[in-house]
Amino acid sequence: MKLHILGCYAATPRTISNPTSQVLEIKNQLFLIDCAEGTQTQLRKQKIKFSRINHIFISHLHGDHFYGLIGLISTFMLLNRANDLHVYGPKGIKEIILLQLRASGSYTGYNLYFHELENTESEIVYEDEKVLVKTIPLKHRVYTNGYLFQEKNIKRKLNLEAIDYYKIDTCYFQKLIYGGDMKLDDETIIPNAALTFNPEPEKSYAFCSDTVYNEEIVPIIKNVDALYHESTFLESEAHLAEKTMHSTAKQAAKIAKLAHAKCLILGHYSTRYGNIEPFKTEAKTIFNNVILAEDGKTIEL
Amino acid sequence: MKLHILGCYAATPRTISNPTSQVLEIKNQLFLIDCAEGTQTQLRKQKIKFSRINHIFISHLHGDHFYGLIGLISTFMLLNRANDLHVYGPKGIKEIILLQLRASGSYTGYNLYFHELENTESEIVYEDEKVLVKTIPLKHRVYTNGYLFQEKNIKRKLNLEAIDYYKIDTCYFQKLIYGGDMKLDDETIIPNAALTFNPEPEKSYAFCSDTVYNEEIVPIIKNVDALYHESTFLESEAHLAEKTMHSTAKQAAKIAKLAHAKCLILGHYSTRYGNIEPFKTEAKTIFNNVILAEDGKTIEL
Repeated sequence: MKLHILGCYAATPRTISNPTSQVLEIKNQLFLIDCAEGTQTQLRKQKIKFSRINHIFISHLHGDHFYGLIGLISTFMLLNRANDLHVYGPKGIKEIILLQLRASGSYTGYNLYFHELENTESEIVYEDEKVLVKTIPLKHRVYTNGYLFQEKNIKRKLNLEAIDYYKIDTCYFQKLIYGGDMKLDDETIIPNAALTFNPEPEKSYAFCSDTVYNEEIVPIIKNVDALYHESTFLESEAHLAEKTMHSTAKQAAKIAKLAHAKCLILGHYSTRYGNIEPFKTEAKTIFNNVILAEDGKTIEL
Repeated sequence: MKLHILGCYAATPRTISNPTSQVLEIKNQLFLIDCAEGTQTQLRKQKIKFSRINHIFISHLHGDHFYGLIGLISTFMLLNRANDLHVYGPKGIKEIILLQLRASGSYTGYNLYFHELENTESEIVYEDEKVLVKTIPLKHRVYTNGYLFQEKNIKRKLNLEAIDYYKIDTCYFQKLIYGGDMKLDDETIIPNAALTFNPEPEKSYAFCSDTVYNEEIVPIIKNVDALYHESTFLESEAHLAEKTMHSTAKQAAKIAKLAHAKCLILGHYSTRYGNIEPFKTEAKTIFNNVILAEDGKTIEL
């Protein structure tokens, strides 16, 4: 699992920083999370192939999280995209995109599916054989969801020594991998546990932006491997965080600690701060394993 | 009169080039023409003060000409803009912008006026004491207007030698500048022409993008000082120009020649061309004074 940070600042695109957009790479699939203005240029800078993106998750309809979406959808069209594209986001997103496509007299050429969200409880919005994605209802000025990405791993690992000992033919390996027991020629049953090891632990990533400090999300993101939690402000501006329904670095760290996250990634910094190091320093007073998101950074999870 | 090229390529933003956007500076006023994705970052790069832009002219509703508008309007809001903002563009632009502002629960804070266009004849869309702006109806796949910007100069220049000779008091200067005759104490009338020179010639700039080759625009842009005419293709791709309703460099030069323009600025190059020099070479076979638009270039007119 790899996380490519395309942009991690709040508010407006600048020459030195970009608003929110990330690409999460899980088992060779790419998921685009938020899509601020400039996202397509950031994708090009990081040499991420546009055609590998089939699912886009939008947290909320503030410009610094989705104003690049219509441009990306149009560019996919110009690149003669063939794959289906799925967009997950708040109710209203479909109308905004379709109105603009209609105004330009354009058709995407590829199938474009909108999955509009309005539930205020966590729900599964995407699932395939490898990955599961759930919403994380957040509290912000408009309807907002974070997203929890979980690798699915139901395949057990073969115990090659035991398999050798019982002389089990390769044609039974699939059965063992999926948890089946083994019946030998003499009718003896060898339980699966004697022939396989437990699956590798699943990895998970939680994206939480934008939100006020909200402990209600903790049960949803419990034991997550990596938690991206917005930290628009430092504690010195806690009053602004409250007023604008954002979080401070310290509050993000509190959530990471309560959730027993393995690591915390901070981002969505207000552009008022010239130096982002103090975000790390502040968060580390509460939670040890802190990474600062930075535009262009790739984080191996 | 100065023209700042923020972006001059067709289709999509890339790491090395930007789609259409320009700032025209006339008599200390800034007019933004088209506003593709990335325009606000380009404005910052060229150190153009956001607060000096009060009028935005959009040619048509293809993404590479207006997907940056909603972001710029939002950024004006975050910067606590106070001035009124006027947006001129095809009918439908207001709905697109307001839908997105509503979805984000935002109000601009400043007055935002839309001047929606649907006329297919040239019309005056803006006028003040210094500048006049007319539409140039273009032919493209969707309703499109170019814009003709004309400096207004009705003020005559004082002939200081003649004024000295007749010993005319400064209190009459305003009258002379605006064309009035002078009555001396002995009732002699000195005609204005004997006391002033003709006004400096007015300067004009025509922006024509996107369009097929269309001689109908020639009377509107006759004798223009600088003509920006799109040249998406070279003649070798004339079949694509025809199919997509764009122009070639040679066609742009033909229009410049027919209109007796003083100079031709080429732009809106298809991203298929790695080198833009051939656009100049091709245009110069027809018309001599050719300038290539390039992102970041400022052209003194």
